[in-house]
Amino acid sequence: MGEFDLIDRLLKPLARGFPGALGLTDDAALVDVPPGRSLVIAKDAIVEGVHFLADDPPEAVAAKLLRVNLSDLAAMGASPLAYLTVIARPKSLDDDWLEGFAAGLALDQQTYGLHLIGGDLVSTPGPLLLSCTILGLVPEGCALTRKGAEPGDHVWVSGTLGDAALGLRVLKGLAATEDEAFFLVERYRRPQPRTALGPRLVGLAHAAIDVSDGLVADLTHILDESGTAATIDADALPLSAVAHGMPGCHDAALVGGDDYELLFTAPDATTAAIEALAGELGVKLTRIGRIAAGQGLTVTDASGRKLDVDGLGWRHF
Amino acid sequence: MGEFDLIDRLLKPLARGFPGALGLTDDAALVDVPPGRSLVIAKDAIVEGVHFLADDPPEAVAAKLLRVNLSDLAAMGASPLAYLTVIARPKSLDDDWLEGFAAGLALDQQTYGLHLIGGDLVSTPGPLLLSCTILGLVPEGCALTRKGAEPGDHVWVSGTLGDAALGLRVLKGLAATEDEAFFLVERYRRPQPRTALGPRLVGLAHAAIDVSDGLVADLTHILDESGTAATIDADALPLSAVAHGMPGCHDAALVGGDDYELLFTAPDATTAAIEALAGELGVKLTRIGRIAAGQGLTVTDASGRKLDVDGLGWRHF
Repeated sequence: MGEFDLIDRLLKPLARGFPGALGLTDDAALVDVPPGRSLVIAKDAIVEGVHFLADDPPEAVAAKLLRVNLSDLAAMGASPLAYLTVIARPKSLDDDWLEGFAAGLALDQQTYGLHLIGGDLVSTPGPLLLSCTILGLVPEGCALTRKGAEPGDHVWVSGTLGDAALGLRVLKGLAATEDEAFFLVERYRRPQPRTALGPRLVGLAHAAIDVSDGLVADLTHILDESGTAATIDADALPLSAVAHGMPGCHDAALVGGDDYELLFTAPDATTAAIEALAGELGVKLTRIGRIAAGQGLTVTDASGRKLDVDGLGWRHF
Repeated sequence: MGEFDLIDRLLKPLARGFPGALGLTDDAALVDVPPGRSLVIAKDAIVEGVHFLADDPPEAVAAKLLRVNLSDLAAMGASPLAYLTVIARPKSLDDDWLEGFAAGLALDQQTYGLHLIGGDLVSTPGPLLLSCTILGLVPEGCALTRKGAEPGDHVWVSGTLGDAALGLRVLKGLAATEDEAFFLVERYRRPQPRTALGPRLVGLAHAAIDVSDGLVADLTHILDESGTAATIDADALPLSAVAHGMPGCHDAALVGGDDYELLFTAPDATTAAIEALAGELGVKLTRIGRIAAGQGLTVTDASGRKLDVDGLGWRHF
């Protein structure tokens, strides 16, 4: 498919309904930010062979590209607005792949309420590379960041942990029943960004991040930026029914990445409101530890005995 | 250089002075848009071996990445605000290259008044790929677009045309003196986006675009989007003293790309104001033709004789 065909047939339909996209006919798009709102903007890229596999379904690649970025917005308390893409394509990429990719974008646009408003299409002698710049809105001065955790805060996490890491291991050969494999691989391929929860945490949470590098690494980011310490109870980590009992499930929950759940800290005073929110949204929210003065992360079991998380190899650099 | 080193040493300094960048410690950045302004956003990517050469100086690659995007803003009448980058780097890329690239970004940030506020750093088994998302501001409802040219409008162009195309040919072996080669290659490598002129054309111009694909192709974009025709006088095209007389200079001015001058249409009533603006900003602004009802672009010489631009091979698809 030529550049113009691809833009006209596959991309321009994704811009319909957002006037500032100017039908993708101009070099830039226009975004009006309502008074009292700040724009939140994030940019990520994924490379074939590094972040996704050549035989991953194109719809799933589209979903992952958007959802990883939607998760960044959710972690800041922002609601999705629009996105731009760069598609750097090798000559070998066939039209079917691009059609599947565009179909995946279209589906997620509907699910999450956002539009394609611009981008670039280039050719590359290298592997397929996809980049997404996502835009969201948050009430001015209210964005959640990694900074702000206070001693005494509870550490909360949404949903369940470890499923995505187990899903990746299933793809690499870990034994599982068909139903288990389907659930875990879906959790890996099509994360469910917490776009409803994130904006509702504004005013309740002190600090937030999404679990992309793994619970231990991401909580450490909060501690580093906030200048605080924390203790978490490994036995309190929420596991899915499928993950529970699988080999390595506790390690996966502690240090596996790609779950795209929200990890946040909040004071005692908001516990009741957060529990009510969990009920209202139908999202499991679990307290897994406390923030303290000092620095460093301590992981214990339910009896209070310290675990050696360094030994789990969670430092990924 | 490891990921963290690169971010801490080379990228974080580029975010200083923009509070919403959050010191590049969070997954997203915050942008406040003042009341009465719209955000203008564009995203482009360049690939080694396709858009730049492996032995291009890294400072020049940084300049080109930013300036091509700054030119998109200028064409919309917007002033620069901030940008995000994706750096997809092959393992073979050395630290010196990255340091030169960051130094080039730093220099242009000062020149054009903008900051790095976010992005992503990934590794790739393919060639170096750089992407830039640029943000600018324009008074609400005032953005210049490709749509809006009206019959009777003058067609104007800033600066001189054809220098960049000749510069590329010099790099490929076209004979030139040292001074000529320096001027033309600089015009190719380090375009000067019209960031001062663009915002001042708001209220004066009906339609605008930057000359990236070449005058004929870019004016055709305006005609297509505006539903109008135009006639331009090839002998009226502004050539630099260096380009004048070089072999192929007239073709380069008509169909060579990469000049990043502004091409715009404006009614008779604003001619005096545009000429005053040219004097005030010290930018050469030249009338090269007129918009008419109908469709299609006619190119004539000074005597009114039609030229066959199709024969020049300007259709680059």
